[in-house]
Amino acid sequence: MTLSNALTIINREIQSIEYPQNPSGLYDPIAYLLSLKGKKIRPALTLLACNLYSGELNEAIPVALAWEIFHNFTLMHDDVMDKADLRRGHATVHKKWNENTAILSGDAMLILSYIYMAKSSPQHLKILLDLFSDTAAKICEGQQFDMEYEQQTFISENDYIEMIRLKTAVMLGACLKSGAIIGKANADDLQNLYEFGVSIGIAFQIKDDWLDVYGDPRIFGKKTGGDILCNKKTFLLVTALETAKNEDREALLYWLGNPSQSDEKINAIRTIYDKLSVKEKTQTVLQSYYQQAMSALEKVSVETAKKKVLEDIAGKLIEREY
Amino acid sequence: MTLSNALTIINREIQSIEYPQNPSGLYDPIAYLLSLKGKKIRPALTLLACNLYSGELNEAIPVALAWEIFHNFTLMHDDVMDKADLRRGHATVHKKWNENTAILSGDAMLILSYIYMAKSSPQHLKILLDLFSDTAAKICEGQQFDMEYEQQTFISENDYIEMIRLKTAVMLGACLKSGAIIGKANADDLQNLYEFGVSIGIAFQIKDDWLDVYGDPRIFGKKTGGDILCNKKTFLLVTALETAKNEDREALLYWLGNPSQSDEKINAIRTIYDKLSVKEKTQTVLQSYYQQAMSALEKVSVETAKKKVLEDIAGKLIEREY
Repeated sequence: MTLSNALTIINREIQSIEYPQNPSGLYDPIAYLLSLKGKKIRPALTLLACNLYSGELNEAIPVALAWEIFHNFTLMHDDVMDKADLRRGHATVHKKWNENTAILSGDAMLILSYIYMAKSSPQHLKILLDLFSDTAAKICEGQQFDMEYEQQTFISENDYIEMIRLKTAVMLGACLKSGAIIGKANADDLQNLYEFGVSIGIAFQIKDDWLDVYGDPRIFGKKTGGDILCNKKTFLLVTALETAKNEDREALLYWLGNPSQSDEKINAIRTIYDKLSVKEKTQTVLQSYYQQAMSALEKVSVETAKKKVLEDIAGKLIEREY
Repeated sequence: MTLSNALTIINREIQSIEYPQNPSGLYDPIAYLLSLKGKKIRPALTLLACNLYSGELNEAIPVALAWEIFHNFTLMHDDVMDKADLRRGHATVHKKWNENTAILSGDAMLILSYIYMAKSSPQHLKILLDLFSDTAAKICEGQQFDMEYEQQTFISENDYIEMIRLKTAVMLGACLKSGAIIGKANADDLQNLYEFGVSIGIAFQIKDDWLDVYGDPRIFGKKTGGDILCNKKTFLLVTALETAKNEDREALLYWLGNPSQSDEKINAIRTIYDKLSVKEKTQTVLQSYYQQAMSALEKVSVETAKKKVLEDIAGKLIEREY
């Protein structure tokens, strides 16, 4: 199974979700958010992991959908908390409708994700459910740390990595693990696939941070520097704050305290990053998580040719320019 | 098992919930809301229904807790949506912390309720999970209708009853049913206990509406007329709007359009209610749901003495003065 095959299945299944007719004010926002184009990498990982083994793909499909619905639930609520206007180039639910709708439809979406998770076979239900809830709780914890860190100037690189591990990375690991559970993989493989997913998840987020500063705007599809203008905690900023001394530190703090939305601020902070070798440091850490991912994948007891699809996904996530 | 026995178990178990240490900003609001005094009638119904049969009470306890945690999750989010300042006489979570905290801790609480539900034995897991998710989705639908109806002047009595059935009543039915499932009750009993719960749930909400207008403030514990001042859709208002003609209708609409927070508004609307016999009509409908509840309970194939605890609860809910 190729990534493209997996995405075809996922897109078909998402389009065929049947929502209750009433109240449309509750279900329309769910259908809307799920209809917007997204990477859908998470549910694809579930199908691909299942396909490494002799598992029943039909059982993996609702579980894959559960992850995608859950992921979109977190987006719906995170966008309210972050007061974001746009999601995937379209109005966020709380902008198109209102905040109460985004809260309540998000709740219904979280419940819907459990309804899909509960469609798995009795032999896997308990273990999948525990994995799902455990991951879901971690993602809430990650979002909580993210919100708390927004209020703090200095956080350590370790705290930042732990935050993105919870908020973003564990879900990729759990998506893979759930597919492999349905595929009846052995315990070592489950663990190694989980670690592969978590490591590419962390690398993925660091790459995201990197692209905002060093991406090519023509390929990136949007102006770079957005994270800099809103003082977003990124791996680059955290690293810079951890290493900057004397006048670099003063300059960084000056710009963080300056609400300017100008290119001047972007360029000033970029110059400090350059001086502190933040680009190279970030590349080094990113590569190290990519290597950890590869080494975990190597240990998975499946023939190399079958694992190539996951290796390619990891490569694309790291090398992507958008 | 008496109601008091059941409540003792529930209170003990809620107090012994162990929350993760970190991030405390996520878990403290959950512990806070669950520590406030509440009726805890829902989890008690689960234990009492299980106890009608030979079921394992230890299996019913986490399921009972799941319902109570879920119920409190709905309160945390509803309070944000309703911009309520007080819950059980204390500051609501979004007032004590902030809205983002109430949204995110609420999400974590919904996930926690599933973690408790998933503790049930493999033989009951799937059926309990489906009941739980189905009920949870209905409660979201009820809240959606409630919010939509706030924007409409006229809704039918049937629409109002359907709304409170979804928002409040189905959960009481599902609490009972889940306990009876663990008790291994037969299908007819499950259905009759569910209907008993739904009917007392509807009667309970109508009584709530009734107390706001006709309650004795000394016993009720707060000033009556609060629902009238904020134009809340209650069974009484819906009935009055459905039956009022000519000058009564005009007077009602005048007062609904008048933002006055005075006793004059309360008295004026009460006078219209009296003229339209709203008190008597409400009592009649309330009694009819109470009778439906009793008739469903009668059909439950358990000796009458054992069922008395549920009969007493129903009686208390209807006759309560606060």
